[in-house]
Amino acid sequence: MIKVGIVGDGYTSEELNRLLAVHPQARVVGITSIENVGRRFAEVFPNLEGYTDVSGEKIEIPGFFKRCDALFIALPHGLAAPLAKEALAAGIKVIDLGADFRFRSRETYEHWYHTTHPAPELLERAVYGLPELYREEVRRTDLTANPGCYPTGAILGLTPALASGLLDPDTLIVDSKSGVSGAGRTPVQTNIFCEVNENVRAYNVGVHRHGPEIEQILSRVAGREVLISFTPHLIPMTRGILSTIYGRLARPVAESEVREIYREFYRESPFVKVLPEGQLPMTKAVYSSNHCHIGMVPDERTGRLVIVTAIDNLVKGASGQAVQNLNLMFGLPETDGLNFPGVLP
Amino acid sequence: MIKVGIVGDGYTSEELNRLLAVHPQARVVGITSIENVGRRFAEVFPNLEGYTDVSGEKIEIPGFFKRCDALFIALPHGLAAPLAKEALAAGIKVIDLGADFRFRSRETYEHWYHTTHPAPELLERAVYGLPELYREEVRRTDLTANPGCYPTGAILGLTPALASGLLDPDTLIVDSKSGVSGAGRTPVQTNIFCEVNENVRAYNVGVHRHGPEIEQILSRVAGREVLISFTPHLIPMTRGILSTIYGRLARPVAESEVREIYREFYRESPFVKVLPEGQLPMTKAVYSSNHCHIGMVPDERTGRLVIVTAIDNLVKGASGQAVQNLNLMFGLPETDGLNFPGVLP
Amino acid sequence: MIKVGIVGDGYTSEELNRLLAVHPQARVVGITSIENVGRRFAEVFPNLEGYTDVSGEKIEIPGFFKRCDALFIALPHGLAAPLAKEALAAGIKVIDLGADFRFRSRETYEHWYHTTHPAPELLERAVYGLPELYREEVRRTDLTANPGCYPTGAILGLTPALASGLLDPDTLIVDSKSGVSGAGRTPVQTNIFCEVNENVRAYNVGVHRHGPEIEQILSRVAGREVLISFTPHLIPMTRGILSTIYGRLARPVAESEVREIYREFYRESPFVKVLPEGQLPMTKAVYSSNHCHIGMVPDERTGRLVIVTAIDNLVKGASGQAVQNLNLMFGLPETDGLNFPGVLP
Amino acid sequence: MIKVGIVGDGYTSEELNRLLAVHPQARVVGITSIENVGRRFAEVFPNLEGYTDVSGEKIEIPGFFKRCDALFIALPHGLAAPLAKEALAAGIKVIDLGADFRFRSRETYEHWYHTTHPAPELLERAVYGLPELYREEVRRTDLTANPGCYPTGAILGLTPALASGLLDPDTLIVDSKSGVSGAGRTPVQTNIFCEVNENVRAYNVGVHRHGPEIEQILSRVAGREVLISFTPHLIPMTRGILSTIYGRLARPVAESEVREIYREFYRESPFVKVLPEGQLPMTKAVYSSNHCHIGMVPDERTGRLVIVTAIDNLVKGASGQAVQNLNLMFGLPETDGLNFPGVLP
Repeated sequence: MIKVGIVGDGYTSEELNRLLAVHPQARVVGITSIENVGRRFAEVFPNLEGYTDVSGEKIEIPGFFKRCDALFIALPHGLAAPLAKEALAAGIKVIDLGADFRFRSRETYEHWYHTTHPAPELLERAVYGLPELYREEVRRTDLTANPGCYPTGAILGLTPALASGLLDPDTLIVDSKSGVSGAGRTPVQTNIFCEVNENVRAYNVGVHRHGPEIEQILSRVAGREVLISFTPHLIPMTRGILSTIYGRLARPVAESEVREIYREFYRESPFVKVLPEGQLPMTKAVYSSNHCHIGMVPDERTGRLVIVTAIDNLVKGASGQAVQNLNLMFGLPETDGLNFPGVLP
Repeated sequence: MIKVGIVGDGYTSEELNRLLAVHPQARVVGITSIENVGRRFAEVFPNLEGYTDVSGEKIEIPGFFKRCDALFIALPHGLAAPLAKEALAAGIKVIDLGADFRFRSRETYEHWYHTTHPAPELLERAVYGLPELYREEVRRTDLTANPGCYPTGAILGLTPALASGLLDPDTLIVDSKSGVSGAGRTPVQTNIFCEVNENVRAYNVGVHRHGPEIEQILSRVAGREVLISFTPHLIPMTRGILSTIYGRLARPVAESEVREIYREFYRESPFVKVLPEGQLPMTKAVYSSNHCHIGMVPDERTGRLVIVTAIDNLVKGASGQAVQNLNLMFGLPETDGLNFPGVLP
Repeated sequence: MIKVGIVGDGYTSEELNRLLAVHPQARVVGITSIENVGRRFAEVFPNLEGYTDVSGEKIEIPGFFKRCDALFIALPHGLAAPLAKEALAAGIKVIDLGADFRFRSRETYEHWYHTTHPAPELLERAVYGLPELYREEVRRTDLTANPGCYPTGAILGLTPALASGLLDPDTLIVDSKSGVSGAGRTPVQTNIFCEVNENVRAYNVGVHRHGPEIEQILSRVAGREVLISFTPHLIPMTRGILSTIYGRLARPVAESEVREIYREFYRESPFVKVLPEGQLPMTKAVYSSNHCHIGMVPDERTGRLVIVTAIDNLVKGASGQAVQNLNLMFGLPETDGLNFPGVLP
Repeated sequence: MIKVGIVGDGYTSEELNRLLAVHPQARVVGITSIENVGRRFAEVFPNLEGYTDVSGEKIEIPGFFKRCDALFIALPHGLAAPLAKEALAAGIKVIDLGADFRFRSRETYEHWYHTTHPAPELLERAVYGLPELYREEVRRTDLTANPGCYPTGAILGLTPALASGLLDPDTLIVDSKSGVSGAGRTPVQTNIFCEVNENVRAYNVGVHRHGPEIEQILSRVAGREVLISFTPHLIPMTRGILSTIYGRLARPVAESEVREIYREFYRESPFVKVLPEGQLPMTKAVYSSNHCHIGMVPDERTGRLVIVTAIDNLVKGASGQAVQNLNLMFGLPETDGLNFPGVLP
């Protein structure tokens, strides 16, 4: 059994516990907390009643590390890097669910996150943990930067089309609709029920930090600099991100050809489902699961391709992908603990 | 008092009753129905308990017309035109909440609605009832085509920028997020609670009938043919449409300049609120009201302008706009019966 | 015009502004705040854009009082009483939306609210502002204790049956289902969207402070001590309280007789609607309105009467009732500014 | 592998497929349908994409039976019994998710379901499939009547207290709040999104068919006739039933004693979790899982006990319990395929 430590006790931490509760090869041995020290984690998240005996604990280094083979870090940016450094030094494999290791360029990170990077020497070592693009790199690393939730859906949706030259890279627009759980569990005015329910709003238009994260990977894919317009929206639901992606077609294509390109690209990726003709993704179909559904509509009238992707932001967009990366890093089957359908209705 | 007849008994009809219940100059004298003949309308919609004595009745012509000064028609397309013709002949002013009179071009209507137009001779006579663009024409007509819900938000959002040459008309994308009430009250699989809740999906991508409606008006505004990419989405809420609109800027502009262009354009329009810098619209702020909120973000990095508009699809997107048109057609103050804030939270 | 001052800037304060924006005889001249001093209230609550020019201000006494004829106090318990005392001394009529003046017995207040009452000498002077029971007293007072949201629905539901001897007072159970807006706008863990959505839970079972408030009034009605079992629940909606009330019938009755007793009791009360046979209340029918809907089902099998009431907790359960009390205290028609239907759907 | 056939293609059928997709010992070999004949079930319910190859088929007897070891019947009452009879004759074990075999008394069934029972001779043979009460009987039967959703939560909540004499059986009130999925997938006016969202209502007060089902089992438990007041409510969520149960205590008890009685009663029942002191159930904690959470509050003031239970109506209230019964009927571990936590948030 892989002994897993988790730093942080919010929704992604709960979700790691939920997923690892049924994982055949890993189990959670400790969860660090600030607010819930000494409190049963099954009381904090009562869905776990009967599935964990762990209580929140203050992080103690190196004591905590000694009990772990792998460490998930679910902390705000800036706090993960120093911890990761120590864990790596102690021989532990690290998966960071935050932003500290997502950028290769220290400058890009520091520009968008308004802070000095605490461990820039690790940026080269870190692998961007999107297995569908970087599976082999993840297998070989001991430091994985788990992608952001919006980037996961956007990059999976754009990569096959961009890599195959279908789209003009200067015309890309990503319009994403997200459930609120991505904002975390800390109560703030904008995420209380009465402000979210029966409401939809755009936020951080053109300045959301997931924009440059998407651009970094798409630029690698396209082999040139790619700038996108990225607009996230909050809609009244808990889980799920639907990304509607627009780009100008480099040439006319049939729907069947586009679909074939996507199917081929994701042939080895068990969690990406390219939907059959006439079906478009919806978030509820991937609710609580690690799947990403993709559909596409080429529009001859306007010469554009519309791509739609759906993920659960807490699973494929966070903790499920983290477990997928854990599996790869430890040589396990990629689907261990994740091979179940979404909850519908 | 203006005596108002209403044809149809769905949500837009309920909403007309709700609004006219507090209108100083108009009252509902009859509602026609198929399923609720003889049933108190206050039982069908119990929010109206104490506010109406009307019961559903079978439409009888010309009897029904004799009791009315104005007729609202809330029927599926194809059914309104013949009725409108008879009502006009009886000297009644008509506001059609459906699509029969929205297109000047019979061919466009017949192409998108897959049917023969029942009264093409009226198309010239009809005015597209978006008062913010065609206020004077509405004042003079006796046949108003009430705009679609998506077109209302999209056209109000794009017109000032397009009219002032700020945007390249070949780059326009309208991504709309709608509550479910736009789908009406007839039960179908896709609008039952369990299929909508915790779910978001795109539908009719590139082929929604509101696309050509938007294009028709924008082409008039731009003085040339305009094609757009229009993608409607259903999100888990009852009321509201947020439209996120993208276009390439013809030249760099400051946010303040864009805002000033919009403020100037809507100076005489009491229901359009151009929000102050730093504020973006959200649908809950216009919930149940006839207002349209507009915000904008020019993005220097990508050279695009992002415009966001919010309306209540049942009010400014349907029945409220219809009452606004009624006011204009009868020489009343435009805000009669509509001058109240949205319900928040 | 009655000049109205409001102390506090949460949801009930927003709602007072929304209602008074269309009130023919009153207008808001000032809103005090702690967090939003100097901020336009229409920015804090953007539904009010175009309907108020007031900005939040620090409360300054006696300056603030000099501008007001009436004062609404929307503060946590314990803070209202000292303020009310000063306002009364300045000749201002006071409506307290909190708990400070709801109890005649200082001991009961201090027992349930765990604090010393700051102005017990005012308890005799205060009137419990449920106009349907105490209309005349409200007309004559200058200090009204606006009832709690749960008590409003429970007391309106039980009073006619209890007053007429239909029910055994020892068997009363009130099971209430409430939207979350009653918890206010301050972000706390239990009211963030992800904790409320797709969830329902009971809270404060047997110990909610609205229990003794209900008991105080029902005891007056019954002419003897009444104890009830009261269980509030949070359900995933913003507004509305449905109370399902159970009691053992003192004698067999027909539904029509019960209905007649209720109709007679509320004959002079414009906001209470006793629904026709076969119809039961639902909260959406009173959404955003000041109405209370009541239905009842006598059950011969079990010998019990089930009464169901629906209100909007922010309107009839708070700010609407406060405006209704304002109307009475200033000799205006009871329905001024409140005479509109709920928003459905 | 146990070969499973499913009759019906609504939500409970989807849920059986979702659960059996990860079951170690059973797999679905056929699904009968009326509306989806020939359609991939993974298209009907896209969460199953990649998890089933089955398409809807017309039921053909005996062909369909020959492929099955077990049959789940998810049909409206009256239709299941004839089918069950044939399946039993063919040597197949049957689990009926409807009402046809839930009553021992043919008269009670016929009285409440307004129909003649199609196979009354089977009523003696059928076992009421609530394993926590009738585990051994289920193990030995080949015909299980899967309990109704409301009865599951109500009976699990009341049985220990009633069996131990804690409660006066003449004072029982069950007030249940349910998500809408229990109403099924067929579109009807009362379950469309706009009628459910931001709304709560009671329905079938005193006359819901699950009332006598609860009474039948409680009467067995109490050893005397038990009548209850049962009020179901629809609240705006998809899954989950919270039942708040009231009864007069036969004697004063401490919370700890009540809890101990419940813990002891459910000692062998892996899916029932009696929550620790100070915690009350909420439906989201059991979302998508087969668990039932129970909490209790004795109220000294009123002499009543309040019991609260939470289940997912589609899992423990339907398909999960059906799989649990399948496990028992085939001698498998009771938790096979069901041993995972709920999805929270």
